Amino acid sequence: MNAEVKTIQFQKNISSPFLMNCWYVAAMSTDVKGEDLFHRTLLNKPVLIYRKMDGTPIAMLDRCPHRFAPLHLGKRVGDDISCLYHALQFDCEGQCTHNPHGNGLIPKAAKVPTFPLMEKYGFIWIWMGDEAADPSKLPDYSMLTNGHSNSVGHTYMHVKANYQLLTDNVMDLSHIDHVHGEIISTRGQLSPLIPKIQENDRMVRAGWEWKQTPALLILNQFLPEPQAEARQFFDITWMPPSHIQLSVGATQTPDVPLNLENCVGQYDLHTTTPETEDSTHYFFATRRNHIEEDSEYNQMKIKAMHEAFETEDIPILEMVHTQMGTTDFLGLNPVLMSNDIAPVKVRKALMKLITQEQQP
Amino acid sequence: MNAEVKTIQFQKNISSPFLMNCWYVAAMSTDVKGEDLFHRTLLNKPVLIYRKMDGTPIAMLDRCPHRFAPLHLGKRVGDDISCLYHALQFDCEGQCTHNPHGNGLIPKAAKVPTFPLMEKYGFIWIWMGDEAADPSKLPDYSMLTNGHSNSVGHTYMHVKANYQLLTDNVMDLSHIDHVHGEIISTRGQLSPLIPKIQENDRMVRAGWEWKQTPALLILNQFLPEPQAEARQFFDITWMPPSHIQLSVGATQTPDVPLNLENCVGQYDLHTTTPETEDSTHYFFATRRNHIEEDSEYNQMKIKAMHEAFETEDIPILEMVHTQMGTTDFLGLNPVLMSNDIAPVKVRKALMKLITQEQQP
Amino acid sequence: MNAEVKTIQFQKNISSPFLMNCWYVAAMSTDVKGEDLFHRTLLNKPVLIYRKMDGTPIAMLDRCPHRFAPLHLGKRVGDDISCLYHALQFDCEGQCTHNPHGNGLIPKAAKVPTFPLMEKYGFIWIWMGDEAADPSKLPDYSMLTNGHSNSVGHTYMHVKANYQLLTDNVMDLSHIDHVHGEIISTRGQLSPLIPKIQENDRMVRAGWEWKQTPALLILNQFLPEPQAEARQFFDITWMPPSHIQLSVGATQTPDVPLNLENCVGQYDLHTTTPETEDSTHYFFATRRNHIEEDSEYNQMKIKAMHEAFETEDIPILEMVHTQMGTTDFLGLNPVLMSNDIAPVKVRKALMKLITQEQQP
Repeated sequence: MNAEVKTIQFQKNISSPFLMNCWYVAAMSTDVKGEDLFHRTLLNKPVLIYRKMDGTPIAMLDRCPHRFAPLHLGKRVGDDISCLYHALQFDCEGQCTHNPHGNGLIPKAAKVPTFPLMEKYGFIWIWMGDEAADPSKLPDYSMLTNGHSNSVGHTYMHVKANYQLLTDNVMDLSHIDHVHGEIISTRGQLSPLIPKIQENDRMVRAGWEWKQTPALLILNQFLPEPQAEARQFFDITWMPPSHIQLSVGATQTPDVPLNLENCVGQYDLHTTTPETEDSTHYFFATRRNHIEEDSEYNQMKIKAMHEAFETEDIPILEMVHTQMGTTDFLGLNPVLMSNDIAPVKVRKALMKLITQEQQP
Repeated sequence: MNAEVKTIQFQKNISSPFLMNCWYVAAMSTDVKGEDLFHRTLLNKPVLIYRKMDGTPIAMLDRCPHRFAPLHLGKRVGDDISCLYHALQFDCEGQCTHNPHGNGLIPKAAKVPTFPLMEKYGFIWIWMGDEAADPSKLPDYSMLTNGHSNSVGHTYMHVKANYQLLTDNVMDLSHIDHVHGEIISTRGQLSPLIPKIQENDRMVRAGWEWKQTPALLILNQFLPEPQAEARQFFDITWMPPSHIQLSVGATQTPDVPLNLENCVGQYDLHTTTPETEDSTHYFFATRRNHIEEDSEYNQMKIKAMHEAFETEDIPILEMVHTQMGTTDFLGLNPVLMSNDIAPVKVRKALMKLITQEQQP
Repeated sequence: MNAEVKTIQFQKNISSPFLMNCWYVAAMSTDVKGEDLFHRTLLNKPVLIYRKMDGTPIAMLDRCPHRFAPLHLGKRVGDDISCLYHALQFDCEGQCTHNPHGNGLIPKAAKVPTFPLMEKYGFIWIWMGDEAADPSKLPDYSMLTNGHSNSVGHTYMHVKANYQLLTDNVMDLSHIDHVHGEIISTRGQLSPLIPKIQENDRMVRAGWEWKQTPALLILNQFLPEPQAEARQFFDITWMPPSHIQLSVGATQTPDVPLNLENCVGQYDLHTTTPETEDSTHYFFATRRNHIEEDSEYNQMKIKAMHEAFETEDIPILEMVHTQMGTTDFLGLNPVLMSNDIAPVKVRKALMKLITQEQQP
């Protein structure tokens, strides 16, 4: 057991509360710029992220194995990192390549744990588990990148709440009429509907279809008759550990199936990465299928969604987290309703995967 | 066991450290205005307090039983409260009256615990125990309200110390010559006196009588000969859990018994409600029996007393609380003196009541 | 067991993590001025320090044994301290000398624990252990005071890290080329050297000798040929619990032994006193053997060293402390190198002394 793992266990004295052998978003691609040494705590561990001279992103534990100084305080020597405190130098595989002390021999244990990364869909994805990183476990989110670059936006928010509360919030869209403003209101149409659920071991999907007049105000202006009735849908799919694809659309064409091919709408990815059990990195990306080239609209749109999360969803979730005093939502015997079917299925599916992973 | 009780126990993992089946002050009447949703933590529980359209105050747990959002973020629907997060609606008995989700059936468990209130003496009193609220257990503090409205004042202070330290402070008036300024100094007359004590299961009373020249400077100007010797008294009575009546007066009439009928003086109520074990809501009311109609004097007086607590008593008590590192004062083997007789009797009486209440 | 000891044990529920029967620095002599009631937490205990009318410093627990009010809030009555809360008065031996309450008898237990002090070398030293204070256990730091008063300076820093990390930092001087600026750079000469070590039960000494061109920039201007090669040395000696003497010098005279008699250099004392396990009082004094009368240079020098610690060493050590999440550095299996020989010997020697002290 290396020093790092031991530290974490010393601090927590429990096995990880998180699913480990899977991909989480570590950062937006744009977070890690040029020669910067970006750092962030992910799943309770301090992580250094930087780009090689050729642009490839690298992640390693942000902690020198000698005296535990944070490596992000150090400096770059080409693609290597030199620790600020005693100038031990590490390459992109975490191997010590230079020891300026004594006879200069490199201690066998002088290695920094590294973490496999993939850069895709505008995000840098990280694998922090002990098993070999499995690229096939990264779901296909190419919907985000299949389109004009002015039709897609990414944003990031820090939230002082357990990540599962954010998953709950998106998997239960019945809150939107109550928490959010007029602009995404279904005018009470959504709540009475029981979503159609599909599920398997690694997926929970929920779908709603309804009519409203006019359509959602983010969409109605792009329909033939903005003030007339439209058919609408939400289609959301959770995949472990905490990735949710959300499609929403509206159409006034009769009979066509409700999906983004036939509707004016957008495809979103909501994905969270635990910082700790009590705080979360919330990443969000969205691509629309209308006025795709309008860069100004694109910026306005991502800014408006960022603000809605920050001023409407997040304050509630942070207060709920504080009130609960635990991350075990189901253990508190909540009153559950039809709108909780999907989030509860997700919680149970995730718990099952974590339990399986931790079995000896 | 309902979700709320379970949460608290999950967080604290101990039985309540407080006496539960009794009345505490939840707020000053003036704290809960119009249609406001007032909220405050009392005895470790978040509590929502608001007034029905007819003015009657209502208290319930400030937590939706669905997803634990604070109800004070919600909105009023007549006398009901609608949760901000998913619009479950609750009436004044905590019963869910509207569920906009699915088929709209109201889950049997969709109830918010409520707490009986009484509004009396300028305060809203709350009963948070499991036993039926017993109005007869609210002592008679009608001295506060039997007089001209310009002769009475109420105030509130938040204190980062255990509530019992505040009880100690009032039950041991020997501190006033040392902590407070000239204006309420007995010039050393009080400390040497051993108070007369009366006690029974639900009361500890201590009385002092002495002479000083001149009388307490808050009173002497209302005596026939302000600079001459006066006879004075303090008469304080604790009742559980943490209510203390304090009468103080001075007279220059020989031989009359020392009480507020014969003396220039005032009647105070000091009462505290634990927020947590480490913080306290301190409520104070005072009524004087002289220049009762003088509204300006009244305001000046309550302001001066508020400031004396805030700048003189409270900083000491907060530092003592920090130094102690425990709420078990007697367990720290303090050096006790004659001035501790009354506060120690109160601590023991309260502990006995708490122990009795928790016996199975 | 007196109340104070009980409090601490109640709070920590462990035996002291510190070596107790030894001298620590409590304050710089200049910290405790005139009639001030200086207070500071030392080894987890609140301590009051003040000077008698004759200037002799006095230390006692900063806590009244009656109701645990901090004594530093009180007032002086000659050489006695009168508690703010109830005016119990204590003399320099901690004995209660006045009780204004009841019959005025002084309770036998009304004593405040006092701590032996020595004032020497510009510091006030404190003995907080249960054994009798042993003046012979204070090492001889008269090097600090044997010289012109303009050649010596003292400074103080508060550090949010365990004190042993500060000891490590000084005992391992190999960091200076990496953490600090040009002015004390050895230009990589120091790191490859294995220090000569001497040790016994109560001392660890490490020495380095090397050549560099030019000499350290803090010294070279005082050598005959400032830009030419010089021979240099570091000589550092730790003594328990946390005192380190550090001599550094340079000479261009061939063959003479490298020490402060033959070299242009300075003698420093680095010494730390735990505030808690997670925070430290860092005291530093320095005396140079050149331009000893230059008061302006003296002030500049101590200011520059203070700033170097505060902006270069301390931020790293505080981050390391946070990363470690424990004070047990060796328990985290660090990668150790030749530059760790001296600090690891010190850690082991100190741990041995603490273990011996706590054996029944």
